[in-house]
Amino acid sequence: MTDLKDIKAFAFDVDGVFTDGSVIAMDNGDLLRIFNAKDSFSVRTAVMNGFPVAIITGGCSESIISRFNSLGIPSSDIYQMSKNKLPDLLHFCERHNLDISQVIFGGDDVPDVEALRAAGLGICPKDACVECREAADVVSEFCGGHRFVRDIVERTLRAQNKWIFDPQQPWGFSYREEVNSAQFKSGRHVQ
Amino acid sequence: MTDLKDIKAFAFDVDGVFTDGSVIAMDNGDLLRIFNAKDSFSVRTAVMNGFPVAIITGGCSESIISRFNSLGIPSSDIYQMSKNKLPDLLHFCERHNLDISQVIFGGDDVPDVEALRAAGLGICPKDACVECREAADVVSEFCGGHRFVRDIVERTLRAQNKWIFDPQQPWGFSYREEVNSAQFKSGRHVQ
Amino acid sequence: MTDLKDIKAFAFDVDGVFTDGSVIAMDNGDLLRIFNAKDSFSVRTAVMNGFPVAIITGGCSESIISRFNSLGIPSSDIYQMSKNKLPDLLHFCERHNLDISQVIFGGDDVPDVEALRAAGLGICPKDACVECREAADVVSEFCGGHRFVRDIVERTLRAQNKWIFDPQQPWGFSYREEVNSAQFKSGRHVQ
Amino acid sequence: MTDLKDIKAFAFDVDGVFTDGSVIAMDNGDLLRIFNAKDSFSVRTAVMNGFPVAIITGGCSESIISRFNSLGIPSSDIYQMSKNKLPDLLHFCERHNLDISQVIFGGDDVPDVEALRAAGLGICPKDACVECREAADVVSEFCGGHRFVRDIVERTLRAQNKWIFDPQQPWGFSYREEVNSAQFKSGRHVQ
Repeated sequence: MTDLKDIKAFAFDVDGVFTDGSVIAMDNGDLLRIFNAKDSFSVRTAVMNGFPVAIITGGCSESIISRFNSLGIPSSDIYQMSKNKLPDLLHFCERHNLDISQVIFGGDDVPDVEALRAAGLGICPKDACVECREAADVVSEFCGGHRFVRDIVERTLRAQNKWIFDPQQPWGFSYREEVNSAQFKSGRHVQ
Repeated sequence: MTDLKDIKAFAFDVDGVFTDGSVIAMDNGDLLRIFNAKDSFSVRTAVMNGFPVAIITGGCSESIISRFNSLGIPSSDIYQMSKNKLPDLLHFCERHNLDISQVIFGGDDVPDVEALRAAGLGICPKDACVECREAADVVSEFCGGHRFVRDIVERTLRAQNKWIFDPQQPWGFSYREEVNSAQFKSGRHVQ
Repeated sequence: MTDLKDIKAFAFDVDGVFTDGSVIAMDNGDLLRIFNAKDSFSVRTAVMNGFPVAIITGGCSESIISRFNSLGIPSSDIYQMSKNKLPDLLHFCERHNLDISQVIFGGDDVPDVEALRAAGLGICPKDACVECREAADVVSEFCGGHRFVRDIVERTLRAQNKWIFDPQQPWGFSYREEVNSAQFKSGRHVQ
Repeated sequence: MTDLKDIKAFAFDVDGVFTDGSVIAMDNGDLLRIFNAKDSFSVRTAVMNGFPVAIITGGCSESIISRFNSLGIPSSDIYQMSKNKLPDLLHFCERHNLDISQVIFGGDDVPDVEALRAAGLGICPKDACVECREAADVVSEFCGGHRFVRDIVERTLRAQNKWIFDPQQPWGFSYREEVNSAQFKSGRHVQ
């Protein structure tokens, strides 16, 4: 089990990790997720501090790609329809020249077990399935969607003195254009 | 009351069973549901292990069909606008050459009472209506939408040594094409 | 305070009564609500048993009309943008030749206070604002969106021996056509 | 720390303040929020009583603008993509000829710290990040999305004898036209 000071990257499952497992089923079979702003803030802060972050999910939705792109994660680090998470985790490590012992992996259900075992630090939410709770190095005190991601990212960055937000020099945002246009109707831009 | 080892199929109501009863009301009268990924995983595993699974609901929405299709349940096993659940349960048994004593039925409200009584194992969530709690063979310790389905499916499969997930040989997925295309923007497929 | 046996009709606010107050804000200013299937079942049962049901809300959305239409409530009993609930409650009584003493009103926030006082039985959820809890005849043990409506409707119908669901002769449904078409892809209709 | 009697305006972050931090991720990267009707009522009452209300958020969505417009907040007081909340709070004060000591600011995460310190009364939800809980003058007993906004607005207005709702003379609404049309299908307007 790797010390938080030596962690160089994060990899996370989505459902039950960034969320409580809820998926809103749409007509066309697509599923929408309910993320949490505090998790998002921590992921964006990690990315801005140079940590590669992988998303490795059995799900498949444009909304997953859009969400994590806007947190600064490139599509090349988003693995959807992952039937076997460990090879995808290894693929991510290889691309970033990381040893798997330098990576935190967070997952909550049976397909995450092998990746939890192989990662430098395998951590699962309090409400993970029994196989994950057995395989993980650490069982979080938090549930999926309720501070699980925030807690582990924030603690890792604090351990490395990188939990820093300089309000005079904040990191940038990357909203898509169709969303972005909304800003022109807001306070600072009204004549 | 049938032993879990002798169960050959599952039949479930939707609202209050796969969900906590929440329905998002849309403009056109359609209702969207919030499902849970852990329930979904168990249903897909049951289907891949050869268990027929029926969905018998008073509701009616393309989103219900899409959701359960993507878990491997064919439309012919999805009964919508079911005003009387027992005849639909019997219709499902007949089509699959099952005796109703071999089927678990899970339901939570008044229209489910007769099916709960007739099924091999009738089970309702902890927060089911009083009539269901009286009619069921078993009242689950879990509420609808909060592990109720996962618990009963997982325990049944474990009792039959079928709660197995081989990461080298995982079951397939079936996303519709319009959803599927999202994968081509994800990690493994980026050049 | 009118005895449940003498109640002839129901009138309900929407937000905080049928829901926990949650509204999903859409781009065009429209708000979507998350209703509960158990509440819906009770309202539909009341309507089928001949109870007029009024919806009196400060909100305004096609989704409110669609939802309650599908429970059997005609648009003429749905009062939206109600700035003053009591006159709308009186208008409903007049149209149905009811004395206000025969009507249950359920509301949870300041604009509901006068109607709570005037109704035959004014009832508010446990989590209503302080003014409502003072004005109501009864403070429910249930919160808005969590069994509040179901509890009061079910208890009223039970008091009048009308909490009846005959599975051989169930009440009809009224889904709109665009939704309805989904049924043709479901179990009973597949060739 | 300014007494509630001397407060002249409000400024609020959105995620984690009006909400529990939940954001529904859509395909195009847009995020939808789940607001609460009781919060909305209090904000509308504050606006109708002449309190300027600023919305200062790192988020960016048409749905945020639409929601707060309909509560009576002009777009010129809605600051989206706010990377540094304090300058935006000062810009709001200048436009309304307010001293920052007359303004309540409510925020829950790291980017809100400076504004919490500078405001006349800095208040954060019970579930705010540790930096906010340290920086705030007051830590609310309520969580974001669960009465936090309602509580502080209602208490401020009560302290100034402005928590008044005259059912004979209620404040107006401002729904957009496409939403508004729904009213013509409702009770009062049916022939």
